[in-house]
Amino acid sequence: MPDPAQDTLSLEPVRLDDDAGALVILDQSRLPAETVFLRLSTTEEIREAIYELRVRGAPAIGIAAAYGAYLAVRGSSAGTHAGLAADLARARESIGSARPTAVNLSWALSRMEARLAREAHGSLSQIKAALREEANAIRAEDEEVCRRIGENALGLLRPGWGLLTHCNAGALATARWGTATAAIYLGSRRGYGFTVYADETRPLLQGARLTAWELSRAGVAVTLICDNMASSVMRQGLVQAVLVGCDRVAANGDTANKIGTSGVAILARHYGVPFFVHAPLSSVDLACPDGSLIPIEQRPGSEVTEKWYGRRMAPEGISVYNPAFDITDQQLITAIITERGVALPPFGESLAALAAG
Amino acid sequence: MPDPAQDTLSLEPVRLDDDAGALVILDQSRLPAETVFLRLSTTEEIREAIYELRVRGAPAIGIAAAYGAYLAVRGSSAGTHAGLAADLARARESIGSARPTAVNLSWALSRMEARLAREAHGSLSQIKAALREEANAIRAEDEEVCRRIGENALGLLRPGWGLLTHCNAGALATARWGTATAAIYLGSRRGYGFTVYADETRPLLQGARLTAWELSRAGVAVTLICDNMASSVMRQGLVQAVLVGCDRVAANGDTANKIGTSGVAILARHYGVPFFVHAPLSSVDLACPDGSLIPIEQRPGSEVTEKWYGRRMAPEGISVYNPAFDITDQQLITAIITERGVALPPFGESLAALAAG
Repeated sequence: MPDPAQDTLSLEPVRLDDDAGALVILDQSRLPAETVFLRLSTTEEIREAIYELRVRGAPAIGIAAAYGAYLAVRGSSAGTHAGLAADLARARESIGSARPTAVNLSWALSRMEARLAREAHGSLSQIKAALREEANAIRAEDEEVCRRIGENALGLLRPGWGLLTHCNAGALATARWGTATAAIYLGSRRGYGFTVYADETRPLLQGARLTAWELSRAGVAVTLICDNMASSVMRQGLVQAVLVGCDRVAANGDTANKIGTSGVAILARHYGVPFFVHAPLSSVDLACPDGSLIPIEQRPGSEVTEKWYGRRMAPEGISVYNPAFDITDQQLITAIITERGVALPPFGESLAALAAG
Repeated sequence: MPDPAQDTLSLEPVRLDDDAGALVILDQSRLPAETVFLRLSTTEEIREAIYELRVRGAPAIGIAAAYGAYLAVRGSSAGTHAGLAADLARARESIGSARPTAVNLSWALSRMEARLAREAHGSLSQIKAALREEANAIRAEDEEVCRRIGENALGLLRPGWGLLTHCNAGALATARWGTATAAIYLGSRRGYGFTVYADETRPLLQGARLTAWELSRAGVAVTLICDNMASSVMRQGLVQAVLVGCDRVAANGDTANKIGTSGVAILARHYGVPFFVHAPLSSVDLACPDGSLIPIEQRPGSEVTEKWYGRRMAPEGISVYNPAFDITDQQLITAIITERGVALPPFGESLAALAAG
């Protein structure tokens, strides 16, 4: 039986071409009109691609950062371990500061630094091979983590349900499967017959351009709505669960995710719809006690007023507020679904237990 | 002292040029890039302008419909009262069906028909003059109604407050003053120093294109946000009241307004922010028991996927849901502010009492 999800699941949106010394990404800023893969070799190219959301999604930018760290070491002309470490630190400073909210960026870079530290006694080529291995492992683990998140999430869903998503926590945002979409793809293969309502997700339209694209090419029934239509759809009883990803989960369960997520959570609570956050444990930041300490990236107002329009759609000179993320209070979250299992409230305890393994 | 609001309040977005036999409207579909006034003479032109939102806002389309009815009678070649009535009925059928949700359209047309019925014994020129007088009265009354709504609303607001608006219930949506904006303009003249957060209001961007435009040219501090940022702004304590207009208020207080309004009301309830609906009594439909009976206009999906972009921002062939309005449950509304006073819950009683005068 043909697998309709295969087209999406074989995309490989973030991978290494080691022969070419390049990170290969699917340029998400050009979807859905064009499917273009970019080869990025330098730290600066990778930083730019992350900042401009050519590669985006917390897991995917973690993977991209890991490959960026590897490529910086691979291309280093340093002849000593300390020299490689200095070049890796420089790459970390550049790539790691491209976007502040998702914890995966610093998580992946810390892991690369730790691996380098462990390889102090190898030859230069052994060290470089070890870092390649580490970055490839981060990618491979993400794929497995997403699949497990999907299996754990699917246990909470029922055939025929309407599901609402915000932004793109999809295959494009990860090595494969996605976080919030993994259960959708697995369920789709198993005949669950979900209907997905995709918030378009202003201002960068990740829902319209990316989620609708990857789900529809996988044969999933998807209906695009404007962000402000979620209440109307829920009021009509069309949504049985909200599935979102996350950029960082604090120790108490407060969750940073794409701007608008907290509003969807409040609507879900109002209408009695369960609200599920899908989080690789790499996105759980136990060092961060609560959401008030998660930095929120502010982006240019022109993304709201002009970016996709090609002309200005608001009067000149007015003030624009454009935070890229918001914080969803833990009390609005029904469950946080990780690769090791489903965390239920109180999240302070359940997340710590899952993280401890 | 110069009145900074004068630039906006002198716009005259809907008026009659009787010498030219034309309804003159400010084409709102071209704002903020271009300020273009259109002269519309035929029923078909007026219907098109309403359907395409060149003139929009429940009070403004009521006024436009009244002038459309007058112009149909004025230009009629009928030689009898019955002939004029038949031409008016034809105009009503065309203009009255342009948009189904706002009750003002049928309210204004019914008022024009009633006036014609009362003029059965006049000459043809007397009848036409009477209909011009009626349409002009509808416009003049709207201006006064909006001013009174503003005075009544201002009594609920305090200097220095942050106010959030959705869509455009502004001067552009009425003869002058606006409904939700009237208190902002009056307060601005009296030194209240409001800060207004304007939801951009997808898909047609009435907040970005119209509200931000008319408030900023009136010297009001306005910050544009995407619809999905309202929760973030409220969570930071920046909003002390939400001010919206309405397209139809049912007898129990359930309110149809621009899509997204119900979501803002749920957020306001969650954050403990009062939610005020501004309603001329012409928008209160006591014949409609509750919101479930208000027809909701469905518009083309291309408004979501392509309209302002000039190219398609979502994959081909996917389903798009694009309702123009939603219903806000009366229990989420703090007060409904009319020209005769402020209705508080239970709205079934308070609205009936205000409507009875």
